[in-house]
Parts: sequence; C-alpha cells; structure tokens
Amino acid sequence: MSENRIKIVEKILDANDRLANSNRQRFNEVGVYSINLMASPGAGKTSFILKTIEGLMADGVQIGVIEGDTAPVTIDSDKINAAGMPAIQINTGGECHLDAVMLENAIDQMDLSPLDLVIVENVGNLICPAAFALGTHSNVLVASIPEGDDKPYKYPNIYRGLDVLIINKTDLLPYIDFNMDYFRQGVEMLNPGLTTFAVSCKTGEGMDPWLEWLKGRISK
Amino acid sequence: MSENRIKIVEKILDANDRLANSNRQRFNEVGVYSINLMASPGAGKTSFILKTIEGLMADGVQIGVIEGDTAPVTIDSDKINAAGMPAIQINTGGECHLDAVMLENAIDQMDLSPLDLVIVENVGNLICPAAFALGTHSNVLVASIPEGDDKPYKYPNIYRGLDVLIINKTDLLPYIDFNMDYFRQGVEMLNPGLTTFAVSCKTGEGMDPWLEWLKGRISK
Repeated sequence: MSENRIKIVEKILDANDRLANSNRQRFNEVGVYSINLMASPGAGKTSFILKTIEGLMADGVQIGVIEGDTAPVTIDSDKINAAGMPAIQINTGGECHLDAVMLENAIDQMDLSPLDLVIVENVGNLICPAAFALGTHSNVLVASIPEGDDKPYKYPNIYRGLDVLIINKTDLLPYIDFNMDYFRQGVEMLNPGLTTFAVSCKTGEGMDPWLEWLKGRISK
Repeated sequence: MSENRIKIVEKILDANDRLANSNRQRFNEVGVYSINLMASPGAGKTSFILKTIEGLMADGVQIGVIEGDTAPVTIDSDKINAAGMPAIQINTGGECHLDAVMLENAIDQMDLSPLDLVIVENVGNLICPAAFALGTHSNVLVASIPEGDDKPYKYPNIYRGLDVLIINKTDLLPYIDFNMDYFRQGVEMLNPGLTTFAVSCKTGEGMDPWLEWLKGRISK
C-alpha cells in the first residue's frame, strides 16, 4: 500500500479504537462484563451462547446478546429471546465484521443496567473481525473440530488477539481426522499460554470449567 | 455510505471487473476452463480439489491450482504439489479475499499452455469473496454439513452469485442435526435451479456426477 493509503487505514483504526474505549467505559460504569465472540461461519457461536445462558441461569446471571449478521435475518436473536434473554440484532449490510460504531449503536438500544454480562456475536469470519476492537473486556474465539487442525496456521491474526479459545464440537472427534497436538502447537506459537476450553455444545461436555472462568469475571 | 464513498467503491469494483475480463480472455486463448472455488474456513476446499485431481487423472486432465491464503503458509500448495499438479501460492497479506489483480499476478507465474483446468482456491470466507469477480468461468462454493443448515439465509450474497454448489462432508450427516430440506429451500430462494452436488471428500461418495459435469466443460 502507498504511504497515503496506509495513513487513511491508520486513521480509521485509530477512530475505531477511541470509540472502543468509550464502549468499554460504558460497560464499566454499569458493572457489565463484555465478550466479543468470534468464529468461522457455523462453528457454533449461537449454540455456545445458548449453553452459556443455560449454565448461568440458576445463578440468576442476566445476559444481553448483540447479534451481528451481514443480512437482515433474526434466526439467532430469535433463539436468544426464546431462551429468555434480551437480544439486539445488528445488520452490517454486507460488511464482513462488526466495529466499535456498530457496537455503540447497539448498546444505545439495550438497557444495560439490569445486566451482568453482554456477549457480542461477531459476524462469522476468521479474518476481518480481528482488525477491529469493539471495546469488550475479552476476545473469545469458537474454533470447531470439523474446521480442521490447520486453522491457527492459516488465520494467525485472529489467534494472536485472543483472551480465550473455545474448541467446540468435540463430540465429532471420533469421526474426523483432527490432530489436537498439531492444532495446539499452532495456537501456542501464536498466543503462548492462551486460556482454552474444549467443549461440546451438543452434549454439554466441558462447559463447566468455562462457566467457572466466566463467573470469576462477573461482578455479581 | 456517503455519495463520494459509494463512488470510490464503484470505481474499485469497475476496475476489478475490467481486469477480470482480461483474465477470462487469457484463459480462453489457451482453452483452459477456470473455477473460483469459495467456502468457509475448513469446509474442505483443498480436499475437494485433491479428490477432483484424483478423479480426473486417469483421463490425463492437467490441472493448475492457485491457492489464496491470508498468511504466508504453503500447507495447501504442498498438498497439490504432492498430488503431482502445479500450484501457485498467493499470500493476500491479511486481505480477506482474492481479486482480479491477484489472479492476474498468479497466472503470470503459471505456464497455462499445458493445462486443461485451473482451480483458484479463494480465501476461506463467505462474505468478501462474493464482491470480487476474478474472471474465472464459474463460481463454485463448497458448503459443508457441520456448518449448519442456515448458512444460505445468513450469507445470501455468496449463494446468489454461484454457478455450482458442492455440499461436502455428507459422511457426517448421521452425527449432526442438519435439515437438508431447510438448507435447499434457502438455496432455491436465492439461486433457483442451482446445479448442486452432495459429496463426501472423505469417502469419495457423490464425486462422480461432479466429475462428469466438469469433464463436459473441459475442452480436452
């Protein structure tokens, strides 16, 4: 890229970062812990949110969900509402990622005061979301077994920026050639010591350690 | 977007389309059929290319592969070379899709004259590649069963622009809640009568009708 183009990109990212800081402040003011949940299409982000809601309900944790989609569909937000939690849908209008402005617009529409946790479900994409901070407290990626064990090597940027990694669909391990050591080596190279939970959202296996980790972050 | 920003985006897409036409001409001049192969990360694009190479080898079809990746890795092109076919790697440097300029650079490096077919493996992404024509003869998407049956509804743009749809990983159907009717309804709404092949790259099931379709396009 030419020097001028690099400057324009830097300005956009700088403006995004400033708005992200302001989003973070708004979460902090009301004591809400917030997560930017990223993944490939179909890795199981919504199923993971639903299992997390189910697991925290007994403790009375209130969870708001912000659903990013590239099209005007309410498939995911309908599921969250059916689980008894408020959801706001963001239609990016074809854009490949959420950014801090879109999140600001969404939290303008959401009553944060009764909430303990906000989960932002980013657009299904392993590339573009990595470049745009939203202002959430943590970046969490849902990787899934059928995607294959080479994903950290192919999409390094998103792995470098993670606070937590979820390995989903472990129930499919018997049916798929997935070398867990090779996968974990790739992750370790990019993000040493990354907090990782292996789960199956279908069977519920492995969810408890994640729920314990999350409860430790929620001020309730 | 403001009117000025829309004009800039239109100019970029217009320049891309003109280069795509020139790429198409270069393929036509040497009688090479070309495919833009798109998919989510991990849907099985490379496995599908390898199975296609295997299936056409007996007929002496020569296949060149252009591998798009966002990082400087040669995992996929190494596999193609091991299968005895030439591969060129494009590192997009973090960009989320290939475009006509990148393809032009790749075919500059590839000797097209002995080839019958070129397969361009786009970056794993269901959003951005849909907006950029490469100049290939057909757009083919590899969807996979574990991604879920709601993907056409959530990523409509990519489905609208397809010439062929491959539904991969049918061997996993017994282990996954996937409603094929719901999936196909979504596809039919966006792209009526779309040519579709259901396959398992693991077992090889369903590959023959695809190979027959492809042979019909290759001038050899």
